[in-house]
Amino acid sequence: MPLLVMKFGGTSVATLDRIRRAAKRVGVEVAKGYDVIVIVSAMAGETNKLVGLVNETSPLFDAREYDAIVSSGENVTAGLMALTLQEMDVPARSWQGWQVPLKTTNAHAAARIVEIPTDNISAKFAEGMQVAVVAGFQGIGPDGRVTTLGRGGSDTTAVAFAAAFGAERCDIYTDVDGVYTTDPRICEKARKLDKIAFEEMLELASLGAKVLQTRSVELAMRYNVKLRVLSSFEEMDDAAGTLVCDEDEIMELNVVSGVAYSRDEAKMTLISVADRPGIAAAIFGPLSEAGVNVDMIVQNISEEGRTDMTFSCPTDQVKRAEKAMADAKAAGAINFHDIVADTGVAKVSVVGIGMRSHAGVAAKMFKVLSDEGINIKVITTSEIKISVLIDRKYMELAVQALHDAFELEKAA
Amino acid sequence: MPLLVMKFGGTSVATLDRIRRAAKRVGVEVAKGYDVIVIVSAMAGETNKLVGLVNETSPLFDAREYDAIVSSGENVTAGLMALTLQEMDVPARSWQGWQVPLKTTNAHAAARIVEIPTDNISAKFAEGMQVAVVAGFQGIGPDGRVTTLGRGGSDTTAVAFAAAFGAERCDIYTDVDGVYTTDPRICEKARKLDKIAFEEMLELASLGAKVLQTRSVELAMRYNVKLRVLSSFEEMDDAAGTLVCDEDEIMELNVVSGVAYSRDEAKMTLISVADRPGIAAAIFGPLSEAGVNVDMIVQNISEEGRTDMTFSCPTDQVKRAEKAMADAKAAGAINFHDIVADTGVAKVSVVGIGMRSHAGVAAKMFKVLSDEGINIKVITTSEIKISVLIDRKYMELAVQALHDAFELEKAA
Repeated sequence: MPLLVMKFGGTSVATLDRIRRAAKRVGVEVAKGYDVIVIVSAMAGETNKLVGLVNETSPLFDAREYDAIVSSGENVTAGLMALTLQEMDVPARSWQGWQVPLKTTNAHAAARIVEIPTDNISAKFAEGMQVAVVAGFQGIGPDGRVTTLGRGGSDTTAVAFAAAFGAERCDIYTDVDGVYTTDPRICEKARKLDKIAFEEMLELASLGAKVLQTRSVELAMRYNVKLRVLSSFEEMDDAAGTLVCDEDEIMELNVVSGVAYSRDEAKMTLISVADRPGIAAAIFGPLSEAGVNVDMIVQNISEEGRTDMTFSCPTDQVKRAEKAMADAKAAGAINFHDIVADTGVAKVSVVGIGMRSHAGVAAKMFKVLSDEGINIKVITTSEIKISVLIDRKYMELAVQALHDAFELEKAA
Repeated sequence: MPLLVMKFGGTSVATLDRIRRAAKRVGVEVAKGYDVIVIVSAMAGETNKLVGLVNETSPLFDAREYDAIVSSGENVTAGLMALTLQEMDVPARSWQGWQVPLKTTNAHAAARIVEIPTDNISAKFAEGMQVAVVAGFQGIGPDGRVTTLGRGGSDTTAVAFAAAFGAERCDIYTDVDGVYTTDPRICEKARKLDKIAFEEMLELASLGAKVLQTRSVELAMRYNVKLRVLSSFEEMDDAAGTLVCDEDEIMELNVVSGVAYSRDEAKMTLISVADRPGIAAAIFGPLSEAGVNVDMIVQNISEEGRTDMTFSCPTDQVKRAEKAMADAKAAGAINFHDIVADTGVAKVSVVGIGMRSHAGVAAKMFKVLSDEGINIKVITTSEIKISVLIDRKYMELAVQALHDAFELEKAA
């Protein structure tokens, strides 16, 4: 029996009505003859509520307890989806991560998938079950405790199931009808893309375009999983949404495909660090161990053996970073005068596979921002993207100006 | 190390502040040198919310999915309680039912505890952990799926852990400061009891005094677990609350110890049942299989080979009972003219171990109700209680009149 993976995000299962609507879409695929694995997120708002409770209880929380708590939202949706399908006479049952078992590493709150045995679920399909509803975002670690895959982890769950079961396609249902050149909420000229290359999607995802979790795109690229992003609020249509695929499948590549932004960035500066060989490792080793996702890094020119070290990380990891640095200082591993966090910044990036063969994108980007009077604080680049850190108050303006300048409202 | 079980009900963990208050009580016992197993309920309102979602999705739900969904509330509280204790520098971790594993029967939504292996948790105590926080109400069935123990099941979880670990005492923290002669909300003369016999508590619990789940009292009686009911909202005091104990430990037994009531009763009548030997089994067998908790049963005098059969059950099982009866009729197992549900009734009972040696309690009860003009629909009695089914609108009046008549406001 051909198999499909369908993933429904938080807004697509936010109410019982929406769960019914999602279940109907599943029913349509079942009627076509597919076995379906449905991956569900928590009902919209639930995970934030739980994360809020954890943070209020314990700002530097034990990640094992965090996982045990925040994974509960998905269990609720999985059960409700199974019941809804049963009410439609579609044989279905729910699975929690530990029941599959979806085995992960022990990195609580940011675990990576190690293995998805297919035997339990396959046996049920063989017995006549038509839909396996799996709670997304969660698994079980080698210590036998619940793990989670990080925010947006349900996308990764979906792609991993598609890879493990050899699914024909992995459809990601969300509240937008596809991937856009930028966020339509802050730039009305934003245009939906019919296709986007894995690499571009990867940059967009990692830059804060919240349509897909970065790791889900990495996984899809590695296992060549046909990935489709589409809205659960529009009519069903086999050609709907945006197909994320290999660049070979896209006829005409754009120089710039999209403008992404991330509001949740903080800029942290270690002031007057004793500069010596190995100092970067001494700083970023402890940060990594503390689970801080460092993104951009800038080191000032050294004067009299001391330098300032600046890096960016998600806003909600600032406390964690400060503690890690204070601990490293206390342990004598590093030496700095002060640590300063600037949480009033945002990251804006332009992304496009065509950049590889076109020069001048960076120069154009800097000129556009300069013309708008926007000061650039930090710059990083990769083969197919350029990112800058700017004051958060200019973020919308920057995105709109760049979208205009690269004429992204026009199809290639 | 001596061990204590402390159970906190939904209102005692309704907010993060209350969880902190509960954690402080745990900390006091830890400071005295106890290892503590904390059993938590879901935050007040959470389980009702989840049950509501299930009922709205699927009125005749698959109990396996019900369990997967409604057990999630306790997981959240267990994690939050563990984090709160950690913040107080008390080494603690949470356990979900399947992690213990608390093994149960396969009777989903009303599972019974089969075994609680102590090795996992004991090993952690040996390593220096001081508090094991266990999600109440839930376990794992032989099919590897989550089971729940029925509403109020966290009390049973607590007593079962106290029995399995040989705890010195099992303290049940709730929103009332003990067991009362009746519900103080409907009778202001209600008086707190310092001690109550297991048997009396059992009758009160099964009659709807919602302080303790019936099965928890049965278990405590069987394993002689010292059980104390006390409020998490009052100052700590070793003599606080009500001790539920063996009747030998109570000096002066009351003829009547309390008046209980249950609002959630429905009276169901099968009209014109073909009366033949085995008809009761043919009716109540299928009801039991459908998970209907039949309480009182009355059979009318048979006329021309037909009779009316009346029974009571919880209001929320009426649909289930109707379906079981319709199915049995369709299968030819029974034959009746109609089935009528009356959900406007309530049960009122007087309970007392002293009844065994005192006659006239029933006569006095019936006279009191008659003097108030209250019609009795069904009567059942046991050695230590008398129950009547009456119109729900007279419930408060009946409770108050009986409390007065038996002078329960006075200590023995």
